[in-house]
Amino acid sequence: MMIWVGVDYYPEQWDRSLWEQDAVLMKEAGVHVVRMAEFAWSRLEPQEGRYDLAWLDEAIDLFGRYEIAVVLGIPTMTPPLWLTQHYPDVLPDLPGQPSSHPGVRGHRCYNSPSMRKYTRLIAEKLAEHYKDHPAVIGWQTDNEFSLHMCRCKHCIHGFHQWLQERYETLEVVNREWGTAVWSGAYTDWSQITLYETSEQHFNPSFLLDYRRFQSESVVRYQQIQVDAIRQHNPEQFITHNTWSAPLPLEHEKLYEPLDFASFDYYPASSPDKTATNPYSGALLLDRTRGFKNRNFWVMEQFGGPPGSWMPIWRSPYPGFIRAYAWQSISRGADGVVFFRWRSAIAGAEQFWHGLIDHSNVPGRRFEEFRTFAGEVRALSEQLSDTVLVNRAAILYDFASHTALQLQPQVEGFDYYEELKVIHRSFVKLGIGIDVITDVSHLERYDLVVVPSMFVLEPGTADAIAGYVQQGGLLIATPRTGVKEGNNQCIMRPLPGPLSECLGVQVTEYDPIALDRHTFHDEDGTLYHCSLWNDLLKLTTARAVAWYSGDFYEGTPAVSVNAWGEGQAYYLATFPEEAYWHRLLAELARSLHIPVISQLPEGVQISTRQRGEAVYTFVLNLSREVKTVKLDHPYERLLGRGQASSTLELEPYGVEVLQSAPQKHIGQA
Amino acid sequence: MMIWVGVDYYPEQWDRSLWEQDAVLMKEAGVHVVRMAEFAWSRLEPQEGRYDLAWLDEAIDLFGRYEIAVVLGIPTMTPPLWLTQHYPDVLPDLPGQPSSHPGVRGHRCYNSPSMRKYTRLIAEKLAEHYKDHPAVIGWQTDNEFSLHMCRCKHCIHGFHQWLQERYETLEVVNREWGTAVWSGAYTDWSQITLYETSEQHFNPSFLLDYRRFQSESVVRYQQIQVDAIRQHNPEQFITHNTWSAPLPLEHEKLYEPLDFASFDYYPASSPDKTATNPYSGALLLDRTRGFKNRNFWVMEQFGGPPGSWMPIWRSPYPGFIRAYAWQSISRGADGVVFFRWRSAIAGAEQFWHGLIDHSNVPGRRFEEFRTFAGEVRALSEQLSDTVLVNRAAILYDFASHTALQLQPQVEGFDYYEELKVIHRSFVKLGIGIDVITDVSHLERYDLVVVPSMFVLEPGTADAIAGYVQQGGLLIATPRTGVKEGNNQCIMRPLPGPLSECLGVQVTEYDPIALDRHTFHDEDGTLYHCSLWNDLLKLTTARAVAWYSGDFYEGTPAVSVNAWGEGQAYYLATFPEEAYWHRLLAELARSLHIPVISQLPEGVQISTRQRGEAVYTFVLNLSREVKTVKLDHPYERLLGRGQASSTLELEPYGVEVLQSAPQKHIGQA
Amino acid sequence: MMIWVGVDYYPEQWDRSLWEQDAVLMKEAGVHVVRMAEFAWSRLEPQEGRYDLAWLDEAIDLFGRYEIAVVLGIPTMTPPLWLTQHYPDVLPDLPGQPSSHPGVRGHRCYNSPSMRKYTRLIAEKLAEHYKDHPAVIGWQTDNEFSLHMCRCKHCIHGFHQWLQERYETLEVVNREWGTAVWSGAYTDWSQITLYETSEQHFNPSFLLDYRRFQSESVVRYQQIQVDAIRQHNPEQFITHNTWSAPLPLEHEKLYEPLDFASFDYYPASSPDKTATNPYSGALLLDRTRGFKNRNFWVMEQFGGPPGSWMPIWRSPYPGFIRAYAWQSISRGADGVVFFRWRSAIAGAEQFWHGLIDHSNVPGRRFEEFRTFAGEVRALSEQLSDTVLVNRAAILYDFASHTALQLQPQVEGFDYYEELKVIHRSFVKLGIGIDVITDVSHLERYDLVVVPSMFVLEPGTADAIAGYVQQGGLLIATPRTGVKEGNNQCIMRPLPGPLSECLGVQVTEYDPIALDRHTFHDEDGTLYHCSLWNDLLKLTTARAVAWYSGDFYEGTPAVSVNAWGEGQAYYLATFPEEAYWHRLLAELARSLHIPVISQLPEGVQISTRQRGEAVYTFVLNLSREVKTVKLDHPYERLLGRGQASSTLELEPYGVEVLQSAPQKHIGQA
Repeated sequence: MMIWVGVDYYPEQWDRSLWEQDAVLMKEAGVHVVRMAEFAWSRLEPQEGRYDLAWLDEAIDLFGRYEIAVVLGIPTMTPPLWLTQHYPDVLPDLPGQPSSHPGVRGHRCYNSPSMRKYTRLIAEKLAEHYKDHPAVIGWQTDNEFSLHMCRCKHCIHGFHQWLQERYETLEVVNREWGTAVWSGAYTDWSQITLYETSEQHFNPSFLLDYRRFQSESVVRYQQIQVDAIRQHNPEQFITHNTWSAPLPLEHEKLYEPLDFASFDYYPASSPDKTATNPYSGALLLDRTRGFKNRNFWVMEQFGGPPGSWMPIWRSPYPGFIRAYAWQSISRGADGVVFFRWRSAIAGAEQFWHGLIDHSNVPGRRFEEFRTFAGEVRALSEQLSDTVLVNRAAILYDFASHTALQLQPQVEGFDYYEELKVIHRSFVKLGIGIDVITDVSHLERYDLVVVPSMFVLEPGTADAIAGYVQQGGLLIATPRTGVKEGNNQCIMRPLPGPLSECLGVQVTEYDPIALDRHTFHDEDGTLYHCSLWNDLLKLTTARAVAWYSGDFYEGTPAVSVNAWGEGQAYYLATFPEEAYWHRLLAELARSLHIPVISQLPEGVQISTRQRGEAVYTFVLNLSREVKTVKLDHPYERLLGRGQASSTLELEPYGVEVLQSAPQKHIGQA
Repeated sequence: MMIWVGVDYYPEQWDRSLWEQDAVLMKEAGVHVVRMAEFAWSRLEPQEGRYDLAWLDEAIDLFGRYEIAVVLGIPTMTPPLWLTQHYPDVLPDLPGQPSSHPGVRGHRCYNSPSMRKYTRLIAEKLAEHYKDHPAVIGWQTDNEFSLHMCRCKHCIHGFHQWLQERYETLEVVNREWGTAVWSGAYTDWSQITLYETSEQHFNPSFLLDYRRFQSESVVRYQQIQVDAIRQHNPEQFITHNTWSAPLPLEHEKLYEPLDFASFDYYPASSPDKTATNPYSGALLLDRTRGFKNRNFWVMEQFGGPPGSWMPIWRSPYPGFIRAYAWQSISRGADGVVFFRWRSAIAGAEQFWHGLIDHSNVPGRRFEEFRTFAGEVRALSEQLSDTVLVNRAAILYDFASHTALQLQPQVEGFDYYEELKVIHRSFVKLGIGIDVITDVSHLERYDLVVVPSMFVLEPGTADAIAGYVQQGGLLIATPRTGVKEGNNQCIMRPLPGPLSECLGVQVTEYDPIALDRHTFHDEDGTLYHCSLWNDLLKLTTARAVAWYSGDFYEGTPAVSVNAWGEGQAYYLATFPEEAYWHRLLAELARSLHIPVISQLPEGVQISTRQRGEAVYTFVLNLSREVKTVKLDHPYERLLGRGQASSTLELEPYGVEVLQSAPQKHIGQA
Repeated sequence: MMIWVGVDYYPEQWDRSLWEQDAVLMKEAGVHVVRMAEFAWSRLEPQEGRYDLAWLDEAIDLFGRYEIAVVLGIPTMTPPLWLTQHYPDVLPDLPGQPSSHPGVRGHRCYNSPSMRKYTRLIAEKLAEHYKDHPAVIGWQTDNEFSLHMCRCKHCIHGFHQWLQERYETLEVVNREWGTAVWSGAYTDWSQITLYETSEQHFNPSFLLDYRRFQSESVVRYQQIQVDAIRQHNPEQFITHNTWSAPLPLEHEKLYEPLDFASFDYYPASSPDKTATNPYSGALLLDRTRGFKNRNFWVMEQFGGPPGSWMPIWRSPYPGFIRAYAWQSISRGADGVVFFRWRSAIAGAEQFWHGLIDHSNVPGRRFEEFRTFAGEVRALSEQLSDTVLVNRAAILYDFASHTALQLQPQVEGFDYYEELKVIHRSFVKLGIGIDVITDVSHLERYDLVVVPSMFVLEPGTADAIAGYVQQGGLLIATPRTGVKEGNNQCIMRPLPGPLSECLGVQVTEYDPIALDRHTFHDEDGTLYHCSLWNDLLKLTTARAVAWYSGDFYEGTPAVSVNAWGEGQAYYLATFPEEAYWHRLLAELARSLHIPVISQLPEGVQISTRQRGEAVYTFVLNLSREVKTVKLDHPYERLLGRGQASSTLELEPYGVEVLQSAPQKHIGQA
């Protein structure tokens, strides 16, 4: 598959006189594809059952004439006013939120019968109408799905059915949710409902199940759109654009019926975010690739400072737009579609800037986009069908993430923030890393990190232990193995079902939160730690680091256990990033995974390959000039010529290097 | 008109035995006028249609006997319980607020039919009853009008009518509001309504129009009271007391049918506010004078520490009460009525202190009031019919202020705060300044500052450009010319319709928010700037200051353009106050406007004149002794005798100087 | 009465197989008593009128067999779902909160007819069923009563009745509440209601009365339970567990029909709280003892880190659990029941840790509990029937506390925080102190502190003045004598009715809030003060300290007045703690109350006595070793042997010393 470059474009928002001049400029700048129509329901179906696709036909035809392909969005994120007014069940019933806010967006309940019906009708209408259109290459379902904690009667009813399928009787519900506590036993299904209140005193078993149900509601709702499209367009691709991976949603299930994942990528342009932002961006991209374990698209790539319902961001530094677009490709994007062609002059999103300003005079941002598009076009053939192949992985778990949001343990602790620290440590060492959710193929990896797997079901624990047994290298962290699948506490010493594999038992824990503690390793080097200290009894493991303060001074802070053919590390605390660097570098070297120990701050390296062809991306995501040492000479595909012992990168400079197969930067 | 000194007094709150002793003490202290009855509806009409004015007759007669005049308030800010209980449409429907809170205040919808009916009845009753009373000199409508974001059916219905008058068809509404965005097209008038939610995702065109409508609702509601009073009392004055000018309300329209404006003035008594508070107070007074471009009253002047529903303020420093009362006069007040005679012993306002404490023992604050009243009495004849005549003006714009509140652009930016910086710079240079809203007479001024005129309609832009064309000096700042009147973005380079006059085009902008940047002027002097940096292309202007950092280092930060007979400055950023001082002093000198460059911090100077007679007020609004240099000898009207080369002022000291006509302090 | 050691245990939450092994371990560890059933309504009455007590019979019998006594809770804090579903009037109508949240707790209106009916039924059922059970020794009403600002129709109706009893007519209500302000006059009882809004603009007289009514509603509601139990079990004790004394509730009235008070004690385990926490804990225990002026129980003593709906606390330092349990005994506890035997594995309270963790492996915390239980068992006979006898008291006032919460005066001021400073000063000087609420026996004390008695009714003022008259020593602080009982301001100079006794009049006040001021005493020593400065006119008092800044420099800051046989101090400001130490030490010495001026930080001393036997508790509530000087040799009851001139205490070390009668530590 070639690498696509595109823009998001809203013909319905602009005077028709602008369409053609926009298309001309797009063509000239190298645009391959335009996404459109994902918010246009009120224009496509101005009144119930009266469709007006003529304007869209005209727009698609026009772009088609300029050889620009079209991805069509199903416009269900913005139900029109006639729909919400005549079928108010469309509107979700969200605690602390209005029952209706037409003209806004996202105001639709996934379990609403009317919403499901009219979704099917508009999706089928569009799918059928455009099934033979040569310019239409694919579809996007809805827009940026997220979980709704809706408590309308249709959601409640759906939840009862979901519970009946899962638990059959109320007796089982009462047992699995532990309702004996605080006289919470249900004696009738109708008592299972939601309340307009803070959830902090609620039963965590109930709350986790409700989120599971709502996550599945999204998936079931999307299927209506998928069915409608597939029926008429078996050849065209279907994707969905996720707005941010930290959002707890079972993305794996959401993307299961789709062809590939898409992501809306807005790296922060503020200078005070440059230290962390390139890394959290890398995680989001790796996570998106993990949704289906394959390449993906970016459906909204940063094209100008966001704003509107938040303060307007800083103007991107010269090179920022291009460099971050290359970052998307470097981590697996096969399509990069910029949001948006031109800033809106009307509506709530006026200050979410596009590539071109309200003035319609193309400026610096547009020129950078044009440069990027040209570069991609030049390398498209070389990069086509290349993929990332990594030997280390981080295991992400939806239930643990959700359960820890419901019961956050201590101030400062956040499951996703922990993931960021670990992932960043890999990236700073130049180690390619996957973020996976499925434990059925752990053997693909030499090293797997399992952070805070709070909810740990027996099958998962077995798979992890089995991975170690057969030679894998595991790292686990505190708050692992605390809960059963039903979100009740496991009645055995922590880390619960992984206690044997890890060779330790937690005898007590000290939730230190934002208090800073220290521990030292075998060399006596001191590291900070925070949030949580487990106190360990080593059963079969041996200690490799020890607490250096408080009443448990000298007791183990990190342990390693030989288990079968493999080894299992337990971090009893949350160490500062420097310890992760030290530990991961050591382990990677022992596994012969290439490590680049002196990669400059802000520089990222990753590799896409196709058979013997290997392309290495070197990105300087900082405002300073950076120099990278090379292990051997490479061919420079963007800068032209050869790079021998070092490569100097301008601020936000990018290079793509081509090397002989099996040669990586940093490999001795 | 003489200068009136008065107090706010609530006979209904006190045992009748106190009335006469209060009147005796007032008389003795020099009180000319008492405001009363503005909260007394439940005493004036204890039940529907049953009026009891006997107690008020008695009170007015009593004060009349002591030659104390009365201003009567129409008590509609506090609808009584019988009214809200039997006619609940009186109560506004405010998002996030209760539908009813009797015993509180402000609980009335301006569009409620019942409220309008019973307002007319009580206003007519009072107007007719007191039409011939010799003690009653004037009237106050309601109390401290403010905008209500009410969404009751009467407001919504009124809004539909307002829209139909303005736009005629839904088609035009959809076009003017740009509802194509996010499928927000209205297909029926009934769909135009308000929602119980944050407005941040709403259409800004809709939101601005709703505020315009509500602002006009206040004006229409007030007219009921004005009509009732005028019908019976064509000779008595009518005013209204505004509580705070930053409040976005179209004050010009509100005061149009009234005789003069009034203001409720509570300068902050905390020592940590002394650096800014005297200046924000000066702006409020100048703004009040600008409502009708004429002298005004202060209807509630600080008489003791406010408190009650906020922490009680610091006790005023000795001299504070007198000095701030003189500040009111110095900037155009012809009446100063203190809030309040004595602190309430009951109700929610117990700790909003009056001149006399709960103990009813007059203390230090009361003595200061007595001194002030004596001084005013002594100068009353000299000051009568004097006015302020200024050569510089700041243009305030309701639509821009409101639109910027709806879309605040960046953290730290606030339209009114910008006004404060600019106005303060004038005051610190001793330059008299008007705050105007009307562009039809700009030629009256030598220098006009137009801060962030975000919403800029063609007629206004033409008037401003025409002013420059004919020789005026203009200063404009960022975020000018961004929006059409309908709050859609203007599709041309910023500063939009003033781009030609200012000789610049904004090619890009960097919303730097609270990050600090610097720029330097022609001398190389460095200044801080913040919030927003426009990047300029100079078309016909020349640069006079340049950015000294970031990727646009060396590009223009301030420009000046010769346009017709005049000159137009564009500040591409928000500079620190020191730059304003430098620029305004330079420009004022070039215009031969007197500048006092070494006025001590906290000292303010202003001038009232009547023909040849000029009175200069010198106020030390600080806790330290301050010395002011004089350009020539003056007669001291408060201190007695002559002030020759310098004038020394005690902490919170005040002097009124009389000089020969056309001689001003600071004039060389 | 012996000293009881116990645990809170919830048989309904655990598999029946665990009961007996739990009982065995309890027995072994020295548990005397178990509290149970206070949340078990849904298990005791699974459906309306169908009771299931068999499981509880079995549990009680089992514990009885192990000679473990049982305290039974009436489970009314957690109404079951069948009750709230079928009789929704049970649910309170709380502003800003959901009308129903079953499965949570505290969701019951005290004035609900259904709640009152079903409370009577379940209480009678339990009382009758267990009246002859030898293991059952006492009862707990409900759980942790608190005030509900419920505005359901039953509460409103009850309030009307309460008002009619108190005021008879609406005319009197209007007068007492001062409704003339802001047209708030009531013309019909139905207008007296509550509103869904912030209370900040409400009438403070109304608000105080509503809190009085709701406080009495709790008392009346509890009486249903008391009557049911007494009828069948005249021999068993009844108590109630208060969760935190700062809560404004008329505890004296609540405990009046009960045998003794109980308290739920959770000292903060975080190291950064060690400076203040041992002292605020001491205040809570002294306050609990003051509820009935007699010994009490702790019904929930800290057994592990709380958490769940807040961040999990730090693990307790070694010795912490034992030391704080001894603190409870040292200040009057005759029973110490730990919360809870084992952490819950289900429900919202999973992370409110018990003595034993989820793993069910007893650890360090459990061992500490076992040590404590053994120590108590050894000293039980010696300590039985001992009481505290103190010569100084602080007067707490519900109405003042409540009224100051309604009108907080200045930022930073909090009535209860003021109490903490004063109480801590006594504790740091080793002076035993009572916290009393009743002024009818002030003559029992040599020294009485009356902090900020904002609401001061004539009878109370007379009692306080009479106490001084007859030789007492009084210390009063600012904001005393401000309000009548109806929460209107008193129309006479402050401190109102105590002005004569204190020999001062407040001529003015300066609410300095968080600004720091200073004053100096007769030696010239400078002290900080904050929040509030009264400016005094001394009528008969003499000054002993003076302000050293601002415009009132040199005027009195502290005064003393000879009044009859006694002396009355007035602190015109809120001084730093050092001044309290100085003043209290001086006054205590003058009264021959023993003072220990060099007690190390964190060490607390108190004394229980029975006739001639005196037991002195010395507690080191810190993480450092501390040494205490002794005035003469003592017998060590925990450490064994003699302590002669000094006593060294380990971190969280505890000692009980026995001395000859009338000999106290610190007495010269």
